[in-house]
Amino acid sequence: MQKPSIPKGTRDFSPEEMAKRNYIFNTIREVFHLYGFQQIETPAMENLSTLMGKYGEEGDKLLFKILNSGDCFAGISDEELMEKNPLRFAAKACEKGLRYDLTVPFARYVVQHRNEISFPFKRYQIQPVWRADRPQKGRYREFYQCDGDVVGSDSLINEVELIQIMDEVFHRFGIRVCIKMNNRKILSGIAEIIGEADKIVDITVAIDKLDKIGLDNVNEELRSKGLPEEAIERLQPIIMLQGSNQEKIATLKKVLSASETGLKGVAELDFILERISHTSIRAELELDLTLARGLNYYTGAIFEVKALDVQIGSITGGGRYDNLTGVFGMEGVSGVGFSFGADRIFDVLNQLDLYPEGSLKTTQLLFVNFGQKEEIHLLPLIAKVRKAGIRTELYPESTKMKKQMGYADAKKIPFVAIVGENEMAENKINLKNMLTGEQTLVTIEELIERF
Amino acid sequence: MQKPSIPKGTRDFSPEEMAKRNYIFNTIREVFHLYGFQQIETPAMENLSTLMGKYGEEGDKLLFKILNSGDCFAGISDEELMEKNPLRFAAKACEKGLRYDLTVPFARYVVQHRNEISFPFKRYQIQPVWRADRPQKGRYREFYQCDGDVVGSDSLINEVELIQIMDEVFHRFGIRVCIKMNNRKILSGIAEIIGEADKIVDITVAIDKLDKIGLDNVNEELRSKGLPEEAIERLQPIIMLQGSNQEKIATLKKVLSASETGLKGVAELDFILERISHTSIRAELELDLTLARGLNYYTGAIFEVKALDVQIGSITGGGRYDNLTGVFGMEGVSGVGFSFGADRIFDVLNQLDLYPEGSLKTTQLLFVNFGQKEEIHLLPLIAKVRKAGIRTELYPESTKMKKQMGYADAKKIPFVAIVGENEMAENKINLKNMLTGEQTLVTIEELIERF
Repeated sequence: MQKPSIPKGTRDFSPEEMAKRNYIFNTIREVFHLYGFQQIETPAMENLSTLMGKYGEEGDKLLFKILNSGDCFAGISDEELMEKNPLRFAAKACEKGLRYDLTVPFARYVVQHRNEISFPFKRYQIQPVWRADRPQKGRYREFYQCDGDVVGSDSLINEVELIQIMDEVFHRFGIRVCIKMNNRKILSGIAEIIGEADKIVDITVAIDKLDKIGLDNVNEELRSKGLPEEAIERLQPIIMLQGSNQEKIATLKKVLSASETGLKGVAELDFILERISHTSIRAELELDLTLARGLNYYTGAIFEVKALDVQIGSITGGGRYDNLTGVFGMEGVSGVGFSFGADRIFDVLNQLDLYPEGSLKTTQLLFVNFGQKEEIHLLPLIAKVRKAGIRTELYPESTKMKKQMGYADAKKIPFVAIVGENEMAENKINLKNMLTGEQTLVTIEELIERF
Repeated sequence: MQKPSIPKGTRDFSPEEMAKRNYIFNTIREVFHLYGFQQIETPAMENLSTLMGKYGEEGDKLLFKILNSGDCFAGISDEELMEKNPLRFAAKACEKGLRYDLTVPFARYVVQHRNEISFPFKRYQIQPVWRADRPQKGRYREFYQCDGDVVGSDSLINEVELIQIMDEVFHRFGIRVCIKMNNRKILSGIAEIIGEADKIVDITVAIDKLDKIGLDNVNEELRSKGLPEEAIERLQPIIMLQGSNQEKIATLKKVLSASETGLKGVAELDFILERISHTSIRAELELDLTLARGLNYYTGAIFEVKALDVQIGSITGGGRYDNLTGVFGMEGVSGVGFSFGADRIFDVLNQLDLYPEGSLKTTQLLFVNFGQKEEIHLLPLIAKVRKAGIRTELYPESTKMKKQMGYADAKKIPFVAIVGENEMAENKINLKNMLTGEQTLVTIEELIERF
């Protein structure tokens, strides 16, 4: 007999894990609603014509492809078949693939439903995606993404609101965070003034090491990447950029004074910080020039959220883009969006033990089952308790007390109600606190008031 | 340029549809928690060895199979390839398939995690499943299932609780329902006493037509199915079974007195009805012998829920089974479970217009954007309003009033806040009711109190 297992890189989620994940997603969902975001869902399977070519050559290989049902060999010649070229075969034998991220399906959705959507469209989406990556610690072949985007508006107020949302979500989680910000236009401006547009990633990587290796070594690294001395010279105030966000902005305005693009980026950042100052957010906000995520994609603001009390990569990130839907023939749809890293947030909440009491919606009260007569006595009482909103179970069988108590322990049920002959005669309930062992004789009304 | 589309039989869910679906799933989820059920999730992809052979030959063909990533031709000889036999090819080129239902993955989960689970295990699961069925009206290739099961307990109290859950869920939805009940053992008993075990489906189908075609035609149909006169004679009291549940049970006890199995089924039904009578449920409960769903699978109670005010098939169904996990080498795991038909419940709620006000979590208040100065004035006010839990938007751009109002209309936002120079000077908000057109000048505190 086969011992059942699941495909590598995939996971089952146990009741406890699900309760925690529901807490995470519900919290995010509530904040999204507070800001007028609306949820959509798209199918797990998209046409491969929608997915192919959107994630680079490597991405095409990482798509899970679904064999056509019926005759998958239809339209394939013997010669083609004997080539045994997996990609070319899949191009004919597979019409559909599994969602690889939420961005491309969202772009497809916007184009397909453009006449039903009222722009600016504030949407969020929480769904799994699938990637045929080599599984390793913390990297899965199936994982949830949790994206929010505002499309069809260039206003920087959208950036401001995204920052407020990040702040509110992590405040509700109790996770202290720093929201790091950068702007693609500033990076372009830097490249412009030093005349090395293609070196921008090398530069941000080198600057990022300043604290660890010191200024001399950073400059050495830049030299080794082929930057001329003059460019390195001009970069010095940027590498050593320090102080408050306002001080950094003042420096950047000077350094980038010759770059129109660069100054525009600084002005955008300045505007966002000014507006945010009217919203009393709680997170740290830090201008960080080393932030260079999604550089091929983002055209304006770039965000990243770091947890302050746990060593872990960024737990949220995003930015502004110019052209979401051009690849599907609809030009001019710009937007700004971000993605909560659900798996990492899960890890942070676990490490800091931040799940609030009651957030996991576990059973609050178990009634012990002593047999037929007691069952009949208890059923109306239990209906009353549930009507009061108390999550309640009746152990379904009148087995040994020890087994029933063991069930309460295993499910971490905090209270057990014991109603035997004596309690029935008195119309009382013996309520046992499973943590302290304390037992109290109460009426049904008193019991309900305890919760 | 390609016009993007989605695979046939799949759906996008719009914000409004998602809000309604969330209302449905959250309501079901809450009731499950009230009864101590816990949620699990399993991967979308299962090993094909887990799925194949579990749904019959036809089911095997309806599984979506995922082409192995990397070299899908590995281990396939030229001869095998040139056979061009889709099923045999898939057996080698595909290791994984998409979840076809929630029952088999649940069985696999129970076996795989048996040492972590505390039985009786009350689990629910809300996830999409995929079937390569021919798409047609109301039948999709991707749809959500919403299952609840209690496994590892033979107690009929579990059946009682499932009925209570169905009753509570449909009560919360405001859908008037009839819960129909039958018992597999009663059907077996009937087959036993008339000596025609293999005719039980023909019999239930014929009985089901009594109201439409009358007794004579029912008997004629039974004759045409090959039932001997003597058997038809014995069936008469069963075909004409009428009256209250108690009257039906009394009749069945007499008719089935020679069948031990049949009497056991009647006793089970009797027990469940007796216990339910102590719980004050609101749904109609009806013993219906024509209920024969899942006859190959169910071994005891069978349930089905019908909406009373809408013409539509059953909106929930389930029953008791003996051996969930035997196919994975773990014997003796019996249980009872049921499945809410989410798509049909969605249709019923739409037809009866039963979504409660506020259940869709749409934006409650839109602040009109008049420009820079007003933005700065509004940001702290809006933060206050959101802090009070009011779902609020600031239109991100200071465009024409008409466009902003159009946005509020399209998103069905019931209130719009207008704050121009005059209102700013007075520190007031002009609150417009979008339904009545009425405008009121209020302070921020008064505004918050209105919601």
